[in-house]
Amino acid sequence: MRILGIDPGSSVTGYGVVELVKPEKRLDAELVHLAHGTLRPPRNAPLALRLAAIQAGLAQVIKDHSPDLAVVEQVFVSSSPRSALILGHARGVALAAVAAAGLPVEEYSAREIKQAVVGSGAAAKAEVQAMVKRILRLESRPSQDAADALAAAICRAHRGRFAELARSAPRRRSRARRSGGGFVLRLSR
Amino acid sequence: MRILGIDPGSSVTGYGVVELVKPEKRLDAELVHLAHGTLRPPRNAPLALRLAAIQAGLAQVIKDHSPDLAVVEQVFVSSSPRSALILGHARGVALAAVAAAGLPVEEYSAREIKQAVVGSGAAAKAEVQAMVKRILRLESRPSQDAADALAAAICRAHRGRFAELARSAPRRRSRARRSGGGFVLRLSR
Repeated sequence: MRILGIDPGSSVTGYGVVELVKPEKRLDAELVHLAHGTLRPPRNAPLALRLAAIQAGLAQVIKDHSPDLAVVEQVFVSSSPRSALILGHARGVALAAVAAAGLPVEEYSAREIKQAVVGSGAAAKAEVQAMVKRILRLESRPSQDAADALAAAICRAHRGRFAELARSAPRRRSRARRSGGGFVLRLSR
Repeated sequence: MRILGIDPGSSVTGYGVVELVKPEKRLDAELVHLAHGTLRPPRNAPLALRLAAIQAGLAQVIKDHSPDLAVVEQVFVSSSPRSALILGHARGVALAAVAAAGLPVEEYSAREIKQAVVGSGAAAKAEVQAMVKRILRLESRPSQDAADALAAAICRAHRGRFAELARSAPRRRSRARRSGGGFVLRLSR
């Protein structure tokens, strides 16, 4: 299963692609990094052109890496209506690009994503970058936006891995359940 | 000059296409209605699919009517961040669809559009619908969303007509200027 994570923004849109690979003799799947990067439309271009560039860029990423599904961070609006509107523009374009390519989209809250990657829903940006680098064995820290996109993909991958485990080893699942939730990293590392 | 007006919304997106035609013996151009309608993605579809449907629908409208430019209402956010975010999704998709088709986009405030169409920046929705019907000699009132889209296109057309007049009849322009702004309906009706 290939997962595309997207962190949409009108200035910078981060993306990351990971794959869950099931090695022959192992029970659980392994998480493999495929790609990450950022789309940065020219700052001085009109908004419509920047949005079209984000859309074309994501269409290219999807074409290059053929993900099976996409993950976009859920937004709980706490900022001003103005910045919510602007974020909405980029997010709408990202969602449309993904749906236009026929991919299902899932949404997780920032809290769920940080919980899955760092183990704390209140983790700082730098911690997310560091853990993403470690989990995917990257040579250098990805930029914040790419790290957030990879983190969203990792969050979804952990869930996929758990579902896989649940199917193949029901006893192990019930043990994990008894140990009290927080299954994401507990089972996978 | 063909103008596409768009009134984006995640439930209903209105569109309207008008053309400025210059008759042989007349000084000013005539405004001709070409098309209008609404895009209504299935209400129960996921947001991403609805956005992709809006995008595909607008791409089709652009293909069918080959407008030279598009007009989208400027948004002054006064509502909640939540509704600004949702509106932003649809608006971003509309802007990206237009830019992806190579069209320039112009933005006018709701006030400017109502001023141009009804003569008052504070006009009610029903007045906009009635005046759009009258200006374009339609047989029936367009729906609110289509009327708003047509109104945006008409607003831009009035400006285009004025620019045309300014080129062809400089004396008339300076008279209009002296008469003190509000050129839009004054010159065109």
